[in-house]
Amino acid sequence: MSTHDLHRLTASEALQLIRTDQISVEEYARSLLKRVESRDSQVQAWAYLNPNLILSQARALDKVPKEERGPLHGIAIGVKDIMYTKDMPTEHNSPLYKGSLIQVDASPVMTLRNSGALIFGKTTTTEFASTTVGPQTSNPYNKGRTPGGSSSGSGAAVADMQVPIALGTQTGGSIIRPGSFNGILGYKPTWGAISREGVRMYSINLDTVGFYARSVQDLQLLADVFRLQDDEIPKPFILPGATFALCKTEVWPEAGPGTIKAMERAAELLRAAGAETVELDLPEDFNGMQDLHRRISQGDGRAAFLGEYTTAKDKLDTFLVGQVENVSGITRREYLEALDVVASLRPKIDRIASRYAAILTPSVPDEAPEGIESTGSAVFNAMWTALHIPVVNIPGFSGSSKLPIGLSLVAPRYKDRYLLNVSEEISKVFGNGGWQSDL
Amino acid sequence: MSTHDLHRLTASEALQLIRTDQISVEEYARSLLKRVESRDSQVQAWAYLNPNLILSQARALDKVPKEERGPLHGIAIGVKDIMYTKDMPTEHNSPLYKGSLIQVDASPVMTLRNSGALIFGKTTTTEFASTTVGPQTSNPYNKGRTPGGSSSGSGAAVADMQVPIALGTQTGGSIIRPGSFNGILGYKPTWGAISREGVRMYSINLDTVGFYARSVQDLQLLADVFRLQDDEIPKPFILPGATFALCKTEVWPEAGPGTIKAMERAAELLRAAGAETVELDLPEDFNGMQDLHRRISQGDGRAAFLGEYTTAKDKLDTFLVGQVENVSGITRREYLEALDVVASLRPKIDRIASRYAAILTPSVPDEAPEGIESTGSAVFNAMWTALHIPVVNIPGFSGSSKLPIGLSLVAPRYKDRYLLNVSEEISKVFGNGGWQSDL
Repeated sequence: MSTHDLHRLTASEALQLIRTDQISVEEYARSLLKRVESRDSQVQAWAYLNPNLILSQARALDKVPKEERGPLHGIAIGVKDIMYTKDMPTEHNSPLYKGSLIQVDASPVMTLRNSGALIFGKTTTTEFASTTVGPQTSNPYNKGRTPGGSSSGSGAAVADMQVPIALGTQTGGSIIRPGSFNGILGYKPTWGAISREGVRMYSINLDTVGFYARSVQDLQLLADVFRLQDDEIPKPFILPGATFALCKTEVWPEAGPGTIKAMERAAELLRAAGAETVELDLPEDFNGMQDLHRRISQGDGRAAFLGEYTTAKDKLDTFLVGQVENVSGITRREYLEALDVVASLRPKIDRIASRYAAILTPSVPDEAPEGIESTGSAVFNAMWTALHIPVVNIPGFSGSSKLPIGLSLVAPRYKDRYLLNVSEEISKVFGNGGWQSDL
Repeated sequence: MSTHDLHRLTASEALQLIRTDQISVEEYARSLLKRVESRDSQVQAWAYLNPNLILSQARALDKVPKEERGPLHGIAIGVKDIMYTKDMPTEHNSPLYKGSLIQVDASPVMTLRNSGALIFGKTTTTEFASTTVGPQTSNPYNKGRTPGGSSSGSGAAVADMQVPIALGTQTGGSIIRPGSFNGILGYKPTWGAISREGVRMYSINLDTVGFYARSVQDLQLLADVFRLQDDEIPKPFILPGATFALCKTEVWPEAGPGTIKAMERAAELLRAAGAETVELDLPEDFNGMQDLHRRISQGDGRAAFLGEYTTAKDKLDTFLVGQVENVSGITRREYLEALDVVASLRPKIDRIASRYAAILTPSVPDEAPEGIESTGSAVFNAMWTALHIPVVNIPGFSGSSKLPIGLSLVAPRYKDRYLLNVSEEISKVFGNGGWQSDL
């Protein structure tokens, strides 16, 4: 591979070249920077990016003795701009935090940096990752369309090969939706499996830290670094003979032609690969999850933004002002009922999901909608987020405009490693889904 | 009141004097500083305290036009040193954060500062508020005894009248225990009611931000500022005819003579005041809460300290290293089961508690134990913390060494304002419990 194509590498591929002295971290970083330079006017994925800082970090990494190098040595990682980074501002896309430099790393950033990662820059987000008002970022496949949100820049930067890995967070669908819109893997681990220390909070009961990558192997690497161990080390997943549950959910009427076709095509591909598929209608208790999710996020939002509200409510998005003021009028009773009902459904979905190889369900209504003002709908993600179970968006399909569409694989809580093993096989199968990145 | 006694005022009393121009914020602050000066060698409640910063803030507050003053104008507040303060270091009692200056306020600090509070200094804590190894702080009533923990300095400083209000957090018993050991009010609101943004995390499922004060009126003031609204504005609580449930809990064998006597005396006082008391044995489902609490905190701790562990595990307390390495061997299944069982008990305890005026239950096994190396036992607090319900420690009793002992009042979730109303009456009744501060 010529050095000007290094940006195309997955993290695992880049690691291999760095480990065997075929490339330096600096060469790798320069290739990514060149990619950013050529594409930034189109994509605008970065809230903060400092080439000098990147190169000086890269050179420092190159000087680390081999025996002291970490498992992610030299791997460039984009950090969603609601997570503290000790050497870069953290602005939350809020005028209240313009230029705010917090000199500590958020826990996930700390873990990555200590594992040898090259913290590359801060990726754009919606305000506090809590609204659906898009930042300036475009979908790398179409400048006139959203990359999704709230992890807008992370999704776009990984898809556009400006970095191989980026951090995201999800309260509704903020990891999975950009994963689908940008044709990459988005992984929302089990809630609580990764510390959110130093990561801006919207809903303490829902927010989950996760990742974007272009290969499942890279997600496995991250899962190693973050010690995402299942109780038992799962065996490599064997697809033939496995049974997948196709779960359209109660919001299926929201699915557009792209997602409807993707679900059909996915089922065909699975069966062609020797797997079985069954339709899964969740028990009636799971109806109303959209409303329960909304009650939880808005109930949590009542406390989350009070500090900034008392600082300058005119500098907060009106949606967030409305959370503090509880304009939707959700009572404490309605909020607690939502918490309790959803909590009671978590062990139920664990039991249901454990009967299948995995549950396959839509990631999005359809391909990325037009315009960048709105980051799109989380209608297909909210339920799984509230249930705290791990979800991986697997790309492979496309909509009527040939833009990417992915589907979600879900598994029981803390079966993350198992789900990644399944995802490894499924991503190969969905590779024949009709869509390929042409970037 | 002479100016050299101003430190004795509750926040509400000081506010009244400041509002009516009888004292300036600077005079008030100087009185507190003088108290600190005379007592610090004995109590050592402060991790950071800068008299110049305090006085310059006080003078700035004095210059604020009357119509722009907040509801806490000039009130000095101690902040537990696991909460970010933009103008003071935040060290978490960890060598990894020596001198660490994070230039942003934690959300509760932001809300208080924007309400006119004088952020006075940082109070001592156990390491990351997550161990029971005491800081240098002593119980203000006895230099050889612990003030409790992890909110050691906050409890001691409020009891010692160095500040009228301080912030604490509770994962096990870190607000209620120091409340009891120091003979003051400790208030742990409903979990999630106050944002913990910028507050160091141990257990995301348990940690709760709360307060210390010397009058319930001060807690009401704080509840106003933090918008802790119940669904209905509760009426003033009428004690005669009310029924209190005395709940000894399954850990009653841990109660020493001081707490046994306090529970008896409390029941007598309540009945003498015209209330009724009944013994409450919780249903069997509530047995095993100690173990469930431990599984949750340790399961959460597995993620909470990974960042620092990867930075320098030799600089972490071995207990915290053990959390990351899961030395107790709690499986994901055992952890999830604990989360699910406790979640199912929350609406149950709400229903049970709603049948009584409040539940009265021990705060501690007995008065503060000897030595400052260990901050004591949270055995009587863990259950209520895990159940997310509001708890107020009411002082009034004492043990064999004449040191203070308090009792806990608990109510259903988000009946915080109701519970404060009850606490207002009960604190008067327990004022005849035999113990009075002689500081």
